Amino acid sequence: MNPRYQGIIPPMITPLSGRDTLDSAGLERLVERLIRGGVSGIFALGTTGEAPSLSYRLRRELIEQTCRLAAGRVPVLVGITDTSLVESAALAAHAATCGADAVVTSAPFYFPAGQPELREFIEELLPELELPLMLYNMPALTKTSFSAEVVEWALDQESIVGLKDSSGDLVYFRRMRRLAASQRPDWSFLVGPEELLAESVLLGGHGGINGGANLHPALYVALYEAARSGDLQLARDLSARVMDLSESIYRVGRHGSAIIKGLKCSLSILGVCDDFMAAPFHRFHPTERETIRARLHELGICE
Amino acid sequence: MNPRYQGIIPPMITPLSGRDTLDSAGLERLVERLIRGGVSGIFALGTTGEAPSLSYRLRRELIEQTCRLAAGRVPVLVGITDTSLVESAALAAHAATCGADAVVTSAPFYFPAGQPELREFIEELLPELELPLMLYNMPALTKTSFSAEVVEWALDQESIVGLKDSSGDLVYFRRMRRLAASQRPDWSFLVGPEELLAESVLLGGHGGINGGANLHPALYVALYEAARSGDLQLARDLSARVMDLSESIYRVGRHGSAIIKGLKCSLSILGVCDDFMAAPFHRFHPTERETIRARLHELGICE
Amino acid sequence: MNPRYQGIIPPMITPLSGRDTLDSAGLERLVERLIRGGVSGIFALGTTGEAPSLSYRLRRELIEQTCRLAAGRVPVLVGITDTSLVESAALAAHAATCGADAVVTSAPFYFPAGQPELREFIEELLPELELPLMLYNMPALTKTSFSAEVVEWALDQESIVGLKDSSGDLVYFRRMRRLAASQRPDWSFLVGPEELLAESVLLGGHGGINGGANLHPALYVALYEAARSGDLQLARDLSARVMDLSESIYRVGRHGSAIIKGLKCSLSILGVCDDFMAAPFHRFHPTERETIRARLHELGICE
Amino acid sequence: MNPRYQGIIPPMITPLSGRDTLDSAGLERLVERLIRGGVSGIFALGTTGEAPSLSYRLRRELIEQTCRLAAGRVPVLVGITDTSLVESAALAAHAATCGADAVVTSAPFYFPAGQPELREFIEELLPELELPLMLYNMPALTKTSFSAEVVEWALDQESIVGLKDSSGDLVYFRRMRRLAASQRPDWSFLVGPEELLAESVLLGGHGGINGGANLHPALYVALYEAARSGDLQLARDLSARVMDLSESIYRVGRHGSAIIKGLKCSLSILGVCDDFMAAPFHRFHPTERETIRARLHELGICE
Repeated sequence: MNPRYQGIIPPMITPLSGRDTLDSAGLERLVERLIRGGVSGIFALGTTGEAPSLSYRLRRELIEQTCRLAAGRVPVLVGITDTSLVESAALAAHAATCGADAVVTSAPFYFPAGQPELREFIEELLPELELPLMLYNMPALTKTSFSAEVVEWALDQESIVGLKDSSGDLVYFRRMRRLAASQRPDWSFLVGPEELLAESVLLGGHGGINGGANLHPALYVALYEAARSGDLQLARDLSARVMDLSESIYRVGRHGSAIIKGLKCSLSILGVCDDFMAAPFHRFHPTERETIRARLHELGICE
Repeated sequence: MNPRYQGIIPPMITPLSGRDTLDSAGLERLVERLIRGGVSGIFALGTTGEAPSLSYRLRRELIEQTCRLAAGRVPVLVGITDTSLVESAALAAHAATCGADAVVTSAPFYFPAGQPELREFIEELLPELELPLMLYNMPALTKTSFSAEVVEWALDQESIVGLKDSSGDLVYFRRMRRLAASQRPDWSFLVGPEELLAESVLLGGHGGINGGANLHPALYVALYEAARSGDLQLARDLSARVMDLSESIYRVGRHGSAIIKGLKCSLSILGVCDDFMAAPFHRFHPTERETIRARLHELGICE
Repeated sequence: MNPRYQGIIPPMITPLSGRDTLDSAGLERLVERLIRGGVSGIFALGTTGEAPSLSYRLRRELIEQTCRLAAGRVPVLVGITDTSLVESAALAAHAATCGADAVVTSAPFYFPAGQPELREFIEELLPELELPLMLYNMPALTKTSFSAEVVEWALDQESIVGLKDSSGDLVYFRRMRRLAASQRPDWSFLVGPEELLAESVLLGGHGGINGGANLHPALYVALYEAARSGDLQLARDLSARVMDLSESIYRVGRHGSAIIKGLKCSLSILGVCDDFMAAPFHRFHPTERETIRARLHELGICE
Repeated sequence: MNPRYQGIIPPMITPLSGRDTLDSAGLERLVERLIRGGVSGIFALGTTGEAPSLSYRLRRELIEQTCRLAAGRVPVLVGITDTSLVESAALAAHAATCGADAVVTSAPFYFPAGQPELREFIEELLPELELPLMLYNMPALTKTSFSAEVVEWALDQESIVGLKDSSGDLVYFRRMRRLAASQRPDWSFLVGPEELLAESVLLGGHGGINGGANLHPALYVALYEAARSGDLQLARDLSARVMDLSESIYRVGRHGSAIIKGLKCSLSILGVCDDFMAAPFHRFHPTERETIRARLHELGICE
């Protein structure tokens, strides 16, 4: 029995053309680009998708359009992370209606949940869900990590199918994978930070939900394949290219928003979609945009 | 020119009778209790009100009912803190329609905003608001504090009317008040932690948005008056009573939710309203409830 | 029975003329200045004294000279905070030999001690000490706070005589004072941040160990007296002056070292002592020094 | 030109038989055990060696004995991390006299150093050192990380020869290694957490300073060799054994001290050395010791 999700599942940026307006043409180009790049799925409404910054109306529209555009060629996973269980469940129901493949939730992130509270939250959410659920560990933004005890409980829930770990802590990632080893060979363990994709897959992880795959999906897919097949030298080379991309594109702005800004700016330069950002963020200024353009050129990504 | 808001403005707990159901009868009893207790306003949909855990539908219903019940006897302030500016603005418009007096916002709290991003977020929000805005500093839950630079900018915005500080850091509170001193005598500086109400008002603060005022509004109003009028001995005595309440009622559970749980449980014991809590929290178990009951008795609050 | 220590006990800066050289003449002038300013004691080798940055040889020399210079006119308290219990005990023995009045310790600060470990550390240290011990809560630098449980244990130890709290968290300060209230009227509760001196003393604290008292001891002594005697208006006025000093002198540099740098630079400008600093810090550059000089002038401290 | 240090260099625990007494016989057995296990060096007085908890007298004794026992068979690296530059330099001089091969320093750890202050601290320390210096990144305990800017400066200092990274953040590790790539092929990049040894070496790291190598040096050496030579399957298997050891031995106590306690307890059970610990820690109680014994048995380490 294999993990349900393997390979590269980009946390799709959300193309916007205004405060509450989807860039639909951009979204179509982006989805085609990802699928053409060989991704194993699309994760809509994650952190990179600026999900918490979007209105619920726009989130629902994005789910509909993404599912329609993917058209069953790759599974669509939908982020339903919210501070309100009622809103999480409503979004999950909408995702099911639209034909999504699974939903993904992190911890409720205003109040820092204690571990029993976190388990109970998931426990209460489960019966509301028609789709399988993937857990999403993102302690830097949710203030809490899924503990070993909660993950052990989750392993007993048939409808929970995996863990995306964006903690950046590979020790945690390996500990959780070790817990699941014999009991749930169908669980997927996917890593968030793309700089750790090679390492995690070489040691038995199942793939990555990596922001950079928005920009250059084929590179991340190739790196995943190299690591999965044990081609160490190729994995090293491609991983070095991912590091180059990361150091070039994600370090232009000063704030935590630099990664998403860099991705959106790059996709805008490449003509894929608009780089409008939801508050509290803003697109790069022209000088920063020129820096990004020059770096894309150096990386051989920009024509 | 006096501060717009002075005195005790309880951050009202949200009486619930189910996951997405308001306890309307309880809400009516609670609002009457607060007004009878002499409060200077009601702050709906704050942290103590579990706002981020509620559906938007329920938030709108709460705003309507609270404004209707207050009926102009005291001003109603409405929390519109959100991760999405669009949803914040929509809630603010609803509050204006319902007759609220002001809206209150903290920082967007999923992505930790850099200071320029925080300022821009408020700057973009302002033109969307019909009502005056109070800032709400809550770094433990929003990951960011309103810096001196942002507060200095806010002092130049006519429609921003004050700062509620729940950081627990009185040095910060005094620094911000000092910035405003000559420029904006109309700004209100209100303190969150009730254990600091006496100290802050003695040194020139304007009042408190204190959770315990849900339970015993008259005590907090009396303490505010004692401190405001410089009756040091009375302020000390009443402040000691507030400490007793805090140590008795807020320390029963293990998690961060202990304060809200203690308040809701107490109000339920007093027959004011239901103690149902929104996920990820749950009401106290019977043994904890008995502990609260005994402590209310010791405090002389319970009959 | 009164608290052993009341009033202002400056955490004395350590005058240095080189990496491992005491500025003895400066130390003499500083000690005289403090005593003339009306302080109730001198706390040598605290955080403001850069204690952890000094060699043990220099620390011993400083203890000797300070005790000799104070000459019994005011009690000398000696910081023995260390990561090594053996070195703490050795320093305490030296302090006793030199005629110090008490020793002061925070938590061992490399390994973050769990609460039972913290209690055991103090428990093991106590029999090594000839002098009374004051606890020093400094969680920002030691990674751990003395919990209510540990303070309750400490209240049962006759040779522990008080708590200096530099957490900046007045809720904590009041909770600890409340624990001691009936059991140990002889305990001293002293507050670290000078911006909270008025508030804490008005509500029953016993004084302050405030850095600014190095620079202007009489101001802090007067503020303490005003607050202690309940002269609210005077306390407000003097507290505003302390805020002015704090905002002027402690905000020149960018790093955590700005407070100590500002104090040493000011004392150097006033001709009291050298402003050499122990690594990892350095004295201000000439332009920053001129800023400090101008601000001292505005504050009316500099001639 | 090859990195100066490659392979496994255990951060040696410090065998103690009392508060200020070295267990000399135990130290001799431990050093022999490590060298027999194939290690590439010994790192004395690191975090695992409880260095900050030891008196300076004992630290000097440990340096002497370790250098004498190693007798040039493997290089000895000596931790000189301190809050006082003067004491750091004195310890480094002693290490040079005793025949150590290099010294290792982290950031001064009481005051959180700003990055310019951190660079200046190292810059001032360098001329005091006769031996090469390795940087030791340990932000969880020193409150500060060596930034990319400081590492870039360090790459220009001939006498600095590498970086040990105990942050647990492999993204950081790879970013720093990338900075050094072309400029300093002689630098060693060694990883602290043993759970990341396989990953880091597979992607080009040079080895590990892993606590578990005190207990089972041959396992870590074999894992290093497997990863270095690209034997992926063997690296996975041995890495799984390291995870088993880590999950078995390091999780018995509740506090941060659990790792060192588990190691010392295990070595005591194996008859290597005493498990006395320096304050603020204490050896395991008998029941915890029996748990460790059973787990060593399961791991096949205990006879």
